[in-house]
Amino acid sequence: MSLDDATVKPHDRLAAALAEDMMAVNDLIRLRMASEHAPRIPEVTAHLVEAGGKRLRPMLTLAAARMCGYDGPYHVHLAATVEFIHTATLLHDDVVDESAQRRGRPTANLLWDNKSSVLVGDYLFARSFQLMVETGSIRVLDILANAAATIAEGEVLQLSAAQDLRTGEDIYLKIVRGKTAALFSAATEVGGVIAGQPDEIVRALFDYGDALGIAFQIADDLLDYQGDSGTTGKNIGDDFRERKLTLPVIKAVAAADAEERAFWSRTIEKGKQMDGDLDHAIALLHKHDTLTATRDDANAWAAKAKDALGTLPRSDLRDMLIDLADYVVARLA
Amino acid sequence: MSLDDATVKPHDRLAAALAEDMMAVNDLIRLRMASEHAPRIPEVTAHLVEAGGKRLRPMLTLAAARMCGYDGPYHVHLAATVEFIHTATLLHDDVVDESAQRRGRPTANLLWDNKSSVLVGDYLFARSFQLMVETGSIRVLDILANAAATIAEGEVLQLSAAQDLRTGEDIYLKIVRGKTAALFSAATEVGGVIAGQPDEIVRALFDYGDALGIAFQIADDLLDYQGDSGTTGKNIGDDFRERKLTLPVIKAVAAADAEERAFWSRTIEKGKQMDGDLDHAIALLHKHDTLTATRDDANAWAAKAKDALGTLPRSDLRDMLIDLADYVVARLA
Repeated sequence: MSLDDATVKPHDRLAAALAEDMMAVNDLIRLRMASEHAPRIPEVTAHLVEAGGKRLRPMLTLAAARMCGYDGPYHVHLAATVEFIHTATLLHDDVVDESAQRRGRPTANLLWDNKSSVLVGDYLFARSFQLMVETGSIRVLDILANAAATIAEGEVLQLSAAQDLRTGEDIYLKIVRGKTAALFSAATEVGGVIAGQPDEIVRALFDYGDALGIAFQIADDLLDYQGDSGTTGKNIGDDFRERKLTLPVIKAVAAADAEERAFWSRTIEKGKQMDGDLDHAIALLHKHDTLTATRDDANAWAAKAKDALGTLPRSDLRDMLIDLADYVVARLA
Repeated sequence: MSLDDATVKPHDRLAAALAEDMMAVNDLIRLRMASEHAPRIPEVTAHLVEAGGKRLRPMLTLAAARMCGYDGPYHVHLAATVEFIHTATLLHDDVVDESAQRRGRPTANLLWDNKSSVLVGDYLFARSFQLMVETGSIRVLDILANAAATIAEGEVLQLSAAQDLRTGEDIYLKIVRGKTAALFSAATEVGGVIAGQPDEIVRALFDYGDALGIAFQIADDLLDYQGDSGTTGKNIGDDFRERKLTLPVIKAVAAADAEERAFWSRTIEKGKQMDGDLDHAIALLHKHDTLTATRDDANAWAAKAKDALGTLPRSDLRDMLIDLADYVVARLA
């Protein structure tokens, strides 16, 4: 989801407030991405790392640490860690999804090959692991190890559940936590931990990241059916064509009559799609008003994210993070 | 390389001496492999984990810790960690190499798909990460993070270097450290670290694992040209067909005249192979006596492994590890 095209841009305000830290993060990323022996590594990663990604996840870590008054060096390591994990996940996703586009550019595995995507992804995971070890904090390592397991489990779960009409909203939520929210919540949580905050603050930061990530992913899944490909960089109906059950469809399946259920079974479960199917799918979503219901869910998660931060002391960074939660769902209105 | 068919079986003696610990490792592996939400995970991993692998790497960790007098619980965690990393690497290798067999069974990605191999491998990496965090030792985490980076870098290096005739023995050694020796040396080193040994003991354990791993991989690469597929589980010439430069060929390329060089360039660099090429390749290895020279190298590394352990106090486990180094190269005679 692109974050650069609304009137209010909390993301840009965060970037400005954290500019110096972000420069340090970018320097560290470039330094640690390099490999003396394997020039293919920076070739592949530069493609992703320099591709104009918004660096949302590392900013969450920096903002969390700074708003908690952190004054040491390790928020930069952790921000770079989080971006490496994110980039590694994208590389492994590219192998998996055969997605034709990522951030508006060809994916790494169209330019290189599956081998490079898998192994360079592994290299970035290893590099992220080295960076987090440098913080010397077992608690930080524990949080990130658990996040890594949740991410991988969510991705594997998606393999089987995404094309199974029995998948309900509870399973969808687990997949969303794996795909998106686990790294968001780890990003904010480790910011508080490295700043030595008490448990209730750390918990609030976790809850914020978790709810923000879920709102973000639900919004992304909704825009796949109602977005504008010019601004989202995605094509309408990608998830449908890739036979991926997301929340608008899950809600429509729950409300489906026998004929509609047969339609979803043919197009999603069996993958037998023909011309006009996407239009019919969208018509069914409108018929059962599931786009509205999905937007309501995204809004509820954004509100939860804001509530979590409400318990923290007021600060400019806190308010920017609160605005960010609004912004993630603002374009759905 | 199969380790079960010689008269002297130090591997089996290790297994007997460490039987109780290995049962605990196997229990922990089964426990941590499980996933409540994603049944595909144990399906894929059971295939590898139960496939009769010799558990060589976890035994190295157990033996190192026990011979240093370790009496706590964490050698079991670390042994399971090492086996999970190994299994994850095999899964990602399967995506990569399109290898038709692994341990005499179909590879995971013929039974499942690339997606499952990549993502379940990621899950095992994450699980190994959780296990090592439980030890609470930053030094252990540092060793394993560095090993993970060396492994990934070696694999990526192999992508470009393995089909490039300019690849010399120095690059080959880096690749071998990545593919094999880095996990062997980490396995033995963390055994010493968790047992609280002084630096010179830890260093000796590292050196042993490093040299053993290199001897092991050189032997594996040699057997690819002169082994018996019935006992090795590999087909003669797999590396040649996969256009993988290994030590016997690297030595032959170094000694090649113009015509021989053209042959290697056509078959390895350009991958244009025809009937009779494998026989001709093997004839060239014999002509330049590179199989003998490769065996000498493997023996030298095995001797180095034994020397490293020679500085440690005598014990049954130490002697079994020393015998293991002999055994790895015994079948090359």
